[in-house]
Amino acid sequence: MIRPLYVLVVAVLASALYAAPRSVIAQAPLASGGPVDAALLEDLVAANRILANEGVVDAYGHVSLRHPRNPDRYLLSRSLAPILVTASDIIEYDLDSTPVDAKGRLSVQERFIHGEMFKARPDVRAVIHSHSPAVIPFGVTNVPMRPVYHMASFLHVGVPVWDVRTVKDPDASGLLVRNPALGRSLAAALGSRPVALMRGHGNVVVGPDVRIAVGRAIYTEVNARLQTLAIGLGGPVTYISTEEGATWDRVPGDTARGWDLWKKQALEQ
Amino acid sequence: MIRPLYVLVVAVLASALYAAPRSVIAQAPLASGGPVDAALLEDLVAANRILANEGVVDAYGHVSLRHPRNPDRYLLSRSLAPILVTASDIIEYDLDSTPVDAKGRLSVQERFIHGEMFKARPDVRAVIHSHSPAVIPFGVTNVPMRPVYHMASFLHVGVPVWDVRTVKDPDASGLLVRNPALGRSLAAALGSRPVALMRGHGNVVVGPDVRIAVGRAIYTEVNARLQTLAIGLGGPVTYISTEEGATWDRVPGDTARGWDLWKKQALEQ
Amino acid sequence: MIRPLYVLVVAVLASALYAAPRSVIAQAPLASGGPVDAALLEDLVAANRILANEGVVDAYGHVSLRHPRNPDRYLLSRSLAPILVTASDIIEYDLDSTPVDAKGRLSVQERFIHGEMFKARPDVRAVIHSHSPAVIPFGVTNVPMRPVYHMASFLHVGVPVWDVRTVKDPDASGLLVRNPALGRSLAAALGSRPVALMRGHGNVVVGPDVRIAVGRAIYTEVNARLQTLAIGLGGPVTYISTEEGATWDRVPGDTARGWDLWKKQALEQ
Amino acid sequence: MIRPLYVLVVAVLASALYAAPRSVIAQAPLASGGPVDAALLEDLVAANRILANEGVVDAYGHVSLRHPRNPDRYLLSRSLAPILVTASDIIEYDLDSTPVDAKGRLSVQERFIHGEMFKARPDVRAVIHSHSPAVIPFGVTNVPMRPVYHMASFLHVGVPVWDVRTVKDPDASGLLVRNPALGRSLAAALGSRPVALMRGHGNVVVGPDVRIAVGRAIYTEVNARLQTLAIGLGGPVTYISTEEGATWDRVPGDTARGWDLWKKQALEQ
Repeated sequence: MIRPLYVLVVAVLASALYAAPRSVIAQAPLASGGPVDAALLEDLVAANRILANEGVVDAYGHVSLRHPRNPDRYLLSRSLAPILVTASDIIEYDLDSTPVDAKGRLSVQERFIHGEMFKARPDVRAVIHSHSPAVIPFGVTNVPMRPVYHMASFLHVGVPVWDVRTVKDPDASGLLVRNPALGRSLAAALGSRPVALMRGHGNVVVGPDVRIAVGRAIYTEVNARLQTLAIGLGGPVTYISTEEGATWDRVPGDTARGWDLWKKQALEQ
Repeated sequence: MIRPLYVLVVAVLASALYAAPRSVIAQAPLASGGPVDAALLEDLVAANRILANEGVVDAYGHVSLRHPRNPDRYLLSRSLAPILVTASDIIEYDLDSTPVDAKGRLSVQERFIHGEMFKARPDVRAVIHSHSPAVIPFGVTNVPMRPVYHMASFLHVGVPVWDVRTVKDPDASGLLVRNPALGRSLAAALGSRPVALMRGHGNVVVGPDVRIAVGRAIYTEVNARLQTLAIGLGGPVTYISTEEGATWDRVPGDTARGWDLWKKQALEQ
Repeated sequence: MIRPLYVLVVAVLASALYAAPRSVIAQAPLASGGPVDAALLEDLVAANRILANEGVVDAYGHVSLRHPRNPDRYLLSRSLAPILVTASDIIEYDLDSTPVDAKGRLSVQERFIHGEMFKARPDVRAVIHSHSPAVIPFGVTNVPMRPVYHMASFLHVGVPVWDVRTVKDPDASGLLVRNPALGRSLAAALGSRPVALMRGHGNVVVGPDVRIAVGRAIYTEVNARLQTLAIGLGGPVTYISTEEGATWDRVPGDTARGWDLWKKQALEQ
Repeated sequence: MIRPLYVLVVAVLASALYAAPRSVIAQAPLASGGPVDAALLEDLVAANRILANEGVVDAYGHVSLRHPRNPDRYLLSRSLAPILVTASDIIEYDLDSTPVDAKGRLSVQERFIHGEMFKARPDVRAVIHSHSPAVIPFGVTNVPMRPVYHMASFLHVGVPVWDVRTVKDPDASGLLVRNPALGRSLAAALGSRPVALMRGHGNVVVGPDVRIAVGRAIYTEVNARLQTLAIGLGGPVTYISTEEGATWDRVPGDTARGWDLWKKQALEQ
């Protein structure tokens, strides 16, 4: 939707690049958004490790942060298992997902998820993509994810399932979001919601900051487990209502409590 | 039921307070119940960590102890993940859940669960609130929790499900027990039983001392897992009978054995 | 069946004793079977810890060994969580489950499971009682446990479910095997098999030595998990056949391999 | 199919050998394929430990590597729990699974799985046999394993179930692949695919190198868990299509990322 010509150029470039995995990404003459506060970078590093500790990601999955000074830049680790990420692994990208200075580091193939989400959602400052295990079954059945308890009440607005096969794109059968067009389609499916499932793949979770996004990713996974158990008991399930979810959106619980624990555990390892 | 006018005042105060999370709680000129024996405090600290180790609580959930010298006071950690709680985090409250001297520490929003339970149940000396994961599905379906094995035979008296939406209260759609009225309603639903579920939220477990309450919280979680598995096998399930449960209430197994292990593991970490 | 009068006397004594938990057990003037080789004791200690490591026991459950020199004596830890057991916790008993010299240590209430099993089964040299979690659902439904894979092929002879309520005994509603009569009834239900379930309680596993008994207890638990999953997939399940089970009984796999790993992991902790 | 007379001789030898577990394997005057690069041996050692860390193997299961210089030799640990394997435990075999120089070490009884697979599949350089727990239920029901998500898309060609009872062989009721004939039958069932299930036993996974084989074994296990959950939700399941699977075969994701993490974690223990 935004800057279609530029996107097209980047898409062509990107489709050439992803065909050469592990090769060095060409460096574009892009301006950096500037230095990032160490505390914020630490949060991004912690987010990677937290998602691994809590079973949301395994060797794969990634989490990004919109640049605090320039909304047209975002920060994302090079292709590396999240539990291993340190500050020196973070690469800066523009919203077309071109690295500002990759320094020879391999970029994540699916970084277009992040770039296109940041384009489509000015309110979003953190994006997570994962193969959250308990969530995946909801992406391949016709059972909608719904919030079973208050910690996942943010799901009350509904959880759409995006199917890559519905996109008219040469990469659609490749299952990965390897170009901007696929990222845009996913962003459109997400709309204004916090979570979308990707059929046969995983999910994407966004938030107004990295702490809230991480909490949402964790409780989306937990909720999937609990909803699966509840359905298994048989009979109707009473979900968190729209009214309850909306109230929680306005007056949430003590979200700092979760983050403080998770970060402490992640950084002490 | 008790001291309605005073409760009303505190409710108004509290509803003002919870709207300002993380702010400093105003200190009331309340008399302390006096110093608490270090061994008992150690048990309360251990209880917090045990519940985390055994998977009953995650970053959330809390456990309280009635003051050993003054039954109108109780002890509860500041808002902190249970695995991190130390003796210095414990705050003393009156039964309206007003801190005696918070020293600037943030109180748990749902402390009214504890205060109102101690009011309604003179026999209770410890209260646990958790999002015990395997238990939550039983709170959102019409399948009653029942004891599958002797370690959970205390459930033979039945496990009521309390639904916050049934309470005529301005906070009812907020899902949390943020005021005394909601706490009273939950206590009424519990009645004389050891465990009640909270629809879309978690459960509350009480006991005559913190060791027994912790054992009950753990085996309520384990029983929920086993009951879910048993139902999944299909066909009728034979539960612990009322007669068996009553016999166990009179002649329990060696409860010290569990506590001794859990405490050792919790404090050695 | 054996020595009914003596058993009756012990039963009366025992029923007096179990009413006084944590009190010192009276010492009978019994002769010891003599010193036990340190390597064998180490195996018994390892067995306790292995069963905890592998999730067969939690804070409860116990494993015994027939005395290597005197078949009328057996060795069993004092009442203690299995993961904590050391050689100094082992108590020697006669087959009526009277301690030779308890030295003030608290005996396991359900030691009669062990004594009566050793009486009824001369071929048995090790007995395990546990609340093996995945097994418990099979004891409260009408779904028989059957072997899903070769590692549990010893279950091909069938797994009876013993229900304490069917025994005409004053302790029957207490759920625990607190006297010889209940132990005898359980042994009769087991017959010549390796495993029996105890309704609403757990199971008992026996073997010709402690290594084989431990392997059976572990793979009974694993098989219960796999059988539950297989049933959940729907449709008929193909179990290990009687012929296959009998062949495995004659020509088992490399059982030492499991024991060597489990013991190493248990003793290195 | 290949060298039937020689195979027959080895089969007779082998059937004599497996009847004497723990005895020393007779050393045949076989030529070695020569020294193996330390980095490759390290990968084989890591593969053993990774499979244990990721829950694919417990005390049992094994992974082999075709000799890099001589395609008629392969490398496999002595009979030892995979988590304990070091380079000094690796034994070299010819494709009839006769050790080149066992040095008194006990061979794995089911090594014929490896030898016969290397004979039948020139494209294969690594073979894994395991009792992958979530996979076993699919081998004893009529529910075919199918890929639920892209990480297991290699299953799109189908997962055959091999039943040892269908083989006319004196060892068929013994459940283990203790001779070349049973290994050949299993290899025939696998055909050109990457994974086959063994009814009442486990599975076999092959790959063009040990890294890819390990990744396939891990994601076969994960996929089994996710497929079980998806089926449990009820209703139809949308699997990865043949077209998507074929595309992934051509353009896979970043497989190095998984291996790098798993190996680091395995070797740091």
